[in-house]
Amino acid sequence: MVRSFIQVEPDSHFPIQNLPYGVFRPLKGGLPRIGVAIGKYVLDLSVLDTAGCFDQIAVSGKNIFSQPSLNALMSFSRPVWKELRATIRRLLDAEVPTLRDNEELRSTAIYFQNEVEMLLPAEIGDYTDFYASKDHATNVGIMFRGKENALMPNWLHLPVGYHGRASSVVISGSDVRRPQGQMKPPDSAAPIFGSSRQLDFELEMGCLIGTGNKQGVPVSVEEAEDYIFGLVLVNDWSARDIQSWEYQPLGPFLAKNFATSISPWVVPLEALELFRVPAPKQDPEPLPYLRQNSPGSFNIQLEVNLQSESMKRPARISASNFSNLYWTMAQQIAHHTIGGCNLRPGDLLASGTISGPEKESRGSMLELTWRGSDPLQLDNGDERVWLEDGDCLTITGWCQGDGFRVGFGEVTGRVLPAILN
Amino acid sequence: MVRSFIQVEPDSHFPIQNLPYGVFRPLKGGLPRIGVAIGKYVLDLSVLDTAGCFDQIAVSGKNIFSQPSLNALMSFSRPVWKELRATIRRLLDAEVPTLRDNEELRSTAIYFQNEVEMLLPAEIGDYTDFYASKDHATNVGIMFRGKENALMPNWLHLPVGYHGRASSVVISGSDVRRPQGQMKPPDSAAPIFGSSRQLDFELEMGCLIGTGNKQGVPVSVEEAEDYIFGLVLVNDWSARDIQSWEYQPLGPFLAKNFATSISPWVVPLEALELFRVPAPKQDPEPLPYLRQNSPGSFNIQLEVNLQSESMKRPARISASNFSNLYWTMAQQIAHHTIGGCNLRPGDLLASGTISGPEKESRGSMLELTWRGSDPLQLDNGDERVWLEDGDCLTITGWCQGDGFRVGFGEVTGRVLPAILN
Repeated sequence: MVRSFIQVEPDSHFPIQNLPYGVFRPLKGGLPRIGVAIGKYVLDLSVLDTAGCFDQIAVSGKNIFSQPSLNALMSFSRPVWKELRATIRRLLDAEVPTLRDNEELRSTAIYFQNEVEMLLPAEIGDYTDFYASKDHATNVGIMFRGKENALMPNWLHLPVGYHGRASSVVISGSDVRRPQGQMKPPDSAAPIFGSSRQLDFELEMGCLIGTGNKQGVPVSVEEAEDYIFGLVLVNDWSARDIQSWEYQPLGPFLAKNFATSISPWVVPLEALELFRVPAPKQDPEPLPYLRQNSPGSFNIQLEVNLQSESMKRPARISASNFSNLYWTMAQQIAHHTIGGCNLRPGDLLASGTISGPEKESRGSMLELTWRGSDPLQLDNGDERVWLEDGDCLTITGWCQGDGFRVGFGEVTGRVLPAILN
Repeated sequence: MVRSFIQVEPDSHFPIQNLPYGVFRPLKGGLPRIGVAIGKYVLDLSVLDTAGCFDQIAVSGKNIFSQPSLNALMSFSRPVWKELRATIRRLLDAEVPTLRDNEELRSTAIYFQNEVEMLLPAEIGDYTDFYASKDHATNVGIMFRGKENALMPNWLHLPVGYHGRASSVVISGSDVRRPQGQMKPPDSAAPIFGSSRQLDFELEMGCLIGTGNKQGVPVSVEEAEDYIFGLVLVNDWSARDIQSWEYQPLGPFLAKNFATSISPWVVPLEALELFRVPAPKQDPEPLPYLRQNSPGSFNIQLEVNLQSESMKRPARISASNFSNLYWTMAQQIAHHTIGGCNLRPGDLLASGTISGPEKESRGSMLELTWRGSDPLQLDNGDERVWLEDGDCLTITGWCQGDGFRVGFGEVTGRVLPAILN
C-alpha cells in the first residue's frame, strides 16, 4: 500500500489514497487558494505551483491554484485531472524525496487544517437536486398519498429532479437561520405567516461538474462520469410546513431555497474506484438513453449526527449508504442533458435524500419520525420531531478500505432562531 | 418634451425617454462593452467613460463599462443608476453641446445598431420563474384539472414560483433546438422517447436584479422595486409533452431547461414611471408581507408574432399587456426573499406567461389553441397547434407615450429540428 511521509491515522478521512481538493484561506491572512487534504494537514497547491512542482504537466502556468474556486481546474478534462492527481500523489509518497526532504518548501506549503478556513469549493452556476432514492420517494409517497400511490407513475422511468437555488448554497460550518414564511396548518381555514415549525435536514451527496457540455448536445450515459469532477456531502435543509403549502404545481421553492450546505473537500472519482458497486437492479428497464451497463454506484457509508444545545456529545440518528440510490449519477447527467440543457464547470447535482430500506437508514426527520408520529429519543432524554433552534446537524461519509478510509469529512450546520419580522 | 440631437422616429422603441442598457460587441471587432440604445443607434459608454464624460459622477474610474455584462453596474444602488441615467440623458439632449458638437467623440462613441452584435446583458446567477397571471393559471388549471379546481388553493395567497435553469438563458436571435426526451402519450402504456411534439412559447417579461440582499435578510414589499435594475422580454420555451410526464411532484425540469430567450435591452424602472398603473385588485387581501400600497404594475403592450418558413411576413398571434399580471414584481421579490433566500446582481425573475382575459391575449400555444382543440389559422393558410421546425417566434413590447414609445425591442428565436439521437 502506498504511504505518505506525512503520518495519517487509519481512521483519518484523508490518506494518500484520497487527495480531495478544496479552497482555503490561511487564518493568519492571505488570499483564497486551492489545497489538497492529507491527514490532519492541507497542502497548498499554489505554493507547489510557484515552486515549479507542476512544471512538467498540463496545469503549469495556467494560474489555476491562486483562485477562490476550483472552477478553473474543473474546466479542464479528466486526463488533466488524472495527471495532476498522480503528480500530487508522487510528491506525497514516502519514497519520493522532492517534497519530503525539502524542509523549506514543506514549511510554506503545508498547513494544519485548524490553521485554515475552508471556503465554498466552487462557484456554482446552477444547482440541481434529484430524488433518486426509491426508499425515500416511497416513504414520502406513503405519508402524503397512501401506500397504493406511493411512487408517482414517472418515478421508475426517469430520475426525477428539479432546479434548486445556487445563491444560497453555503459551506459546512455556516449557521442556518430558520426560515419564516407562509404555511397552512391543517386546522386553519386560511394560510398563516410565521417561523417554520417543521425544519428538517436531508442527507444527500452531490457531484460537482467538471467539464461542461454545449447547449443542445446531450451527454451519453456511458460518457457521463467523465463530466464529474468529484463528490461532496450535501444537507438540503427543508421547511416541511412551507413546502406542503407552496409546492403545487411547480415544486418546492421557499421550503428549500433559504440554505443548502455542502462539505468543503471534493473527492475525485479516482479515489472512489476501489469502492465501486452496482446500483440496485432497475425494473422496468429504463429507456435506452438511461441504460448503464457498467456498475454506477459506490459503497459510501453515511451517518447523520445531531447535537442539541443541552447534549454533551452528538448522537447518531441515521446511518445510510450512497449505494441505496436507485438512479446513478451517470443516469442523472444523461437525463439532465438529453433535451439539450448545458451543464457548466462548478454546477452541483445533488442526489436527493439517501434513505435505505431500514428504519435507521432514513435520511430526514420527516421519515425518521414518520411525519412526527414517532419522535426520536435523544441521549439526554429529549425528544425530537423536527429540528429545534440550537441543534447542530452533521453529516459524515466514508469508504472503508483495508487499513485506510477514503472519507468526505463532514458537512455541519447549526440552526439559528428565525428573525422576528 | 425633451428631444435628442439624434433623430428618433415616433414609433422607435428607443427615444431619449427610454435609454435602456445592453452589452454589445462591434461587428468590426473589439471586446464586449456596455451601451445605451438611442433611436437606430447604440451609444458606447466605455468610450464616453474614457473621454471623461462621467468624471463628475460615482461610476467614474470603476471600470464598469468595458465589461462583458452589466453586473458591475447592477451591483451599485438606485441613486448611482439614477445619476448615470441623468448624465447620459443630458449628453444626448438636443440643447446640450458636449457630445452634440464633438464630432470626433460622436464618431467613436456612436454605432448603428446593425453594426453591433448584442450579447446577454447579465451574468445570470439564478433564474426564477413565477406564475403570476391569473388568467394563465386559470386557463391551464381548467385544461388539466377542470373548471372547479382550476386555481390551486395556494394561488391567490402567494406568487407561486420555481427555480429555472440559468445556464440555458440565451440572447434574442439565438436558434432554439427542439428538445428530445421522455414523454407518455395518452394512448401509450409505457413512456416513449422522441422529439417533443408539443413545443410551445411563453410570453413573459422579467426583471433583472440590481442590488442583492444578504442571505437571511428579507426584502420588504415597499423597498422591493429598489432592487430591480430593469426589465426585459422573456420567451420561456416549453415542451408540453415532456412537461406533463415529468412534472410531478417536483415541477417542470427538462420541459423548460433546454432554452429561455431574453431581449438584449434592459429598460430601467425610471423609464417606465410614466406608465405606472395599479395591479388588479387582490381578493383575498394577501398576508401583510405581501401587501403593496403603491401601484405596482405598468401599462406595457405586448405582442407575439409567428413566421413560418413559408410565410412572407410575421403574423400576430397574441396581444397582451403586462398589467394583466395579478402579482407584482415587488410582491414576487418580497415573497422570494421572505424565508431568507438571497438575490444577487444579475438574477432574472420572470413573470410567467402573461395571459389576459380575452382569447387573443393568451400568451402560449397551449392556451391559444386550447391544448390543440382549436388550431390557429395563419395568413398563408397553414394551421398551427404547436410550434413547428423553422417557425420564428418574436415577442415585442412597448409603452405608448404622447408622441413617443418606451419600448423593449424584441426577443426572437427560430426553432431548429431536434438532433436525431
